Amino acid sequence: MTTFVLFGGTGDLAKRKIIPALYSAFVNGRLDPEFSFIGAAREALSDDDFRTRVAASIETYAAKANGTPEQLAAFLALTGYSKIDAKVPGDFDALKARVNADTTKAKLFYLAIGPDIFIPVVEQLSKHGLVEGNARVVVEKPLGRDAKSAKEINSALRTYLNENQIYRIDHYLGKEMVQNLFALRFANSFLEPLWNRKWIQDVQISISEQVGVETRGDFYDKTGALRDMVQNHLLQLVSIVAMEPPVNANPDAIRDEKVKVLRALRKFTADDVAKKTVRGQYRAGAVDGKPVIGYQHEPGVPTSSRAETFVAIRAEIDNWRWAGVPFYLRTGKRMASRCAEITINFKPIPYSIFGKGQGPLRSNRLVITLQPEESVQLFMKAKEPGEGIRLSDVALNLDFAEASNLRRVESYERLLLDALHGDLTLFVRDDELGAAWEWIDPIMSAWDNDAEGLKSYIAGSWGPAAASYLLAQHGAAWGEEYVEG
Amino acid sequence: MTTFVLFGGTGDLAKRKIIPALYSAFVNGRLDPEFSFIGAAREALSDDDFRTRVAASIETYAAKANGTPEQLAAFLALTGYSKIDAKVPGDFDALKARVNADTTKAKLFYLAIGPDIFIPVVEQLSKHGLVEGNARVVVEKPLGRDAKSAKEINSALRTYLNENQIYRIDHYLGKEMVQNLFALRFANSFLEPLWNRKWIQDVQISISEQVGVETRGDFYDKTGALRDMVQNHLLQLVSIVAMEPPVNANPDAIRDEKVKVLRALRKFTADDVAKKTVRGQYRAGAVDGKPVIGYQHEPGVPTSSRAETFVAIRAEIDNWRWAGVPFYLRTGKRMASRCAEITINFKPIPYSIFGKGQGPLRSNRLVITLQPEESVQLFMKAKEPGEGIRLSDVALNLDFAEASNLRRVESYERLLLDALHGDLTLFVRDDELGAAWEWIDPIMSAWDNDAEGLKSYIAGSWGPAAASYLLAQHGAAWGEEYVEG
Repeated sequence: MTTFVLFGGTGDLAKRKIIPALYSAFVNGRLDPEFSFIGAAREALSDDDFRTRVAASIETYAAKANGTPEQLAAFLALTGYSKIDAKVPGDFDALKARVNADTTKAKLFYLAIGPDIFIPVVEQLSKHGLVEGNARVVVEKPLGRDAKSAKEINSALRTYLNENQIYRIDHYLGKEMVQNLFALRFANSFLEPLWNRKWIQDVQISISEQVGVETRGDFYDKTGALRDMVQNHLLQLVSIVAMEPPVNANPDAIRDEKVKVLRALRKFTADDVAKKTVRGQYRAGAVDGKPVIGYQHEPGVPTSSRAETFVAIRAEIDNWRWAGVPFYLRTGKRMASRCAEITINFKPIPYSIFGKGQGPLRSNRLVITLQPEESVQLFMKAKEPGEGIRLSDVALNLDFAEASNLRRVESYERLLLDALHGDLTLFVRDDELGAAWEWIDPIMSAWDNDAEGLKSYIAGSWGPAAASYLLAQHGAAWGEEYVEG
Repeated sequence: MTTFVLFGGTGDLAKRKIIPALYSAFVNGRLDPEFSFIGAAREALSDDDFRTRVAASIETYAAKANGTPEQLAAFLALTGYSKIDAKVPGDFDALKARVNADTTKAKLFYLAIGPDIFIPVVEQLSKHGLVEGNARVVVEKPLGRDAKSAKEINSALRTYLNENQIYRIDHYLGKEMVQNLFALRFANSFLEPLWNRKWIQDVQISISEQVGVETRGDFYDKTGALRDMVQNHLLQLVSIVAMEPPVNANPDAIRDEKVKVLRALRKFTADDVAKKTVRGQYRAGAVDGKPVIGYQHEPGVPTSSRAETFVAIRAEIDNWRWAGVPFYLRTGKRMASRCAEITINFKPIPYSIFGKGQGPLRSNRLVITLQPEESVQLFMKAKEPGEGIRLSDVALNLDFAEASNLRRVESYERLLLDALHGDLTLFVRDDELGAAWEWIDPIMSAWDNDAEGLKSYIAGSWGPAAASYLLAQHGAAWGEEYVEG
């Protein structure tokens, strides 16, 4: 019997993501039939109270799971609630009574709670003997605000848990296309000879959102885009794109290679930060034709806020494969479109036999789109039909929705199942987290000492003009800046 | 004023291909407005008689050109006829009177006539001063039956013409996708690092036809598939796939590189021929579910015929780029489907991190389809949606019909226009022809001395089983032998 205990069971993340993901796994027969689900939070609720909330969450957020009323009833029958206050050890005795005492059975504690309370919770779990044997703890970002605090959290966690019990979740790693990156790179021979400084001009990884800070203004303003998106999602994508082939597909073999990339990221001096990073904050504008307010007028955000809602960085990886290849990273809120995309720009051909008059043609590029749709496109030159040779840009396309009608497993469901099955591959190891923060720290410090550096941009644009110049000064451009034709 | 003189103007090729191609070029505004078209043949016809035939040919074979009645009338107004007997010099005086005397103006003499009479025709053209200056001669296959006879024809032609006046037509070179091969290879950077012995396992070039010998039984039986298809079309495709980047895109720069490939083809000993070639002749069977007769019962074919209607060859190119990479060539009549396809099979990945249980997966391959549809497909491995990593074979697709709605120029039209414009790129140079025959000669001789070697195959199959074994003994297989899944 597997027990899944969800701390923060009455919270927003539980309601919108975790409970629907768990239910989808249940409906699709992916859970141990003797599974039990316990919500845990400070509120005093009965099992039935909680079930009512769970049913509401499923109704609102798990429509895709397509469960029958019988399946919902069965799921609720496995569901219970345990009132927990991290400061009340007795609450953990009550919880323990509901958890399978057999330490060989899987127990998963999912901490969908603030970082200030998850160390006390883990401490209590440990003191109550709940994390012995086959027990795992899932922790959500933010895991620290900088290298130092991340290290403190890590050591606190490690007081009570082994590293291989800690499942640091980054929901980007649960995306189908991110996992496909492993297949693309290591199950195919045609990319490897191209995948290095000899043939790649630059790599661009861009995650643009159309939403603003929504209801998270207060949290977001203390965090900013660098911590919220770059330190985790973007650097994770960098590490998968750039890693060497691992010894095998075991979690630690893969994470060994990822962390090597993060350690090879060249650390920025204050001067580098000024030259190689751009940060921005959105002003009022329009997204998809609808007027939206500026960041400083968002609820929870001080009108004098200097938090960045946009970041662009020219990163470099100091190793044999990548030396000299810029990795352009970009993320922002209130941008022109919602898109998460990895673009590998190959070098131009060394010499054109076709002479002038062909116009400026973009070099070959591989575009891996994570959202809104999953696709791989390899853009190449072909001859236009007709006399002579006129070249045009065409794409070899792979649309994953077309390629397979197998069920897509949403990111949270995939990661939950992996955690339940004890597969750490798609979770972040302590040294990865540490290396990422160590690269981020100098950027944050330099920004703190450079009040001038924050640029404004109009909501609905592609960010500050400086983000274009960041590439243009090296003869490069973001994908959307090209006029195709 | 450009003059186009078509010898064999009343023949089958003229009717089915050349006149429709010329008319299509006219309708699409691709011809010099002062163009004139003179049919020439032994029959005594008036201009109007010939125009009637031209109109009939256009009606039957040039529907795609979509000309208006006014355009047809205008085309016929430019059309005339000149009775020509190669043995009657006076006939050439009459022709000369109709041809623009200005030697700076383009004159194109298209010899759609048997090889036995085109030397006398060229001799008369020369004696009448018709091939001076800007005059060109288009010659059709067959240009010889072996290296010796091809050399004789070449020297005879060269008695009267400069090499750059001779347009040896191979209609495969007029196909859009063949020209696209130049773009694919030399306008893109991503293929070059892959395009060699390090990353390519083998190359397969297959031209399969569903038709039998139709009305050409008599001619075909004296020729066979090796001369009819391999010596020209297949070896031309080999030379374009395998050539080094040319110095520039000028015709001779390109042909210089093509001929180097043909010269680098390893010559076969009699023992090689036995091991590396397969020839077959079709027996009665069914194509697309319709019963068809065997080759030896085709009209014009002797029942004891030993002509091959199918050839498969394991060729090798002895140079730094290709040493050790088999080029499997195949062509046949009455085969399972009509298809002309170039497949580049990349080597398998050096080591799989994904472990067993993934089943036998085909390596990456690039498939360039010339007909029936034009496409490029890059087959790769991707992860199937869902938990874990299960690999499947998917394709990056480029469908040229979808990619551009620009008018397709048919092979004959393209080549006619090139000849009119004096562009020799897509025509075969004497040394190419010679090198191709020199590679073919030892195969023909060995076959002549090995009566046992001819295998039968059932019409509608993929040829003799020996053609499978030719690859299987090296761990390879033709594309259609894989069961996808």
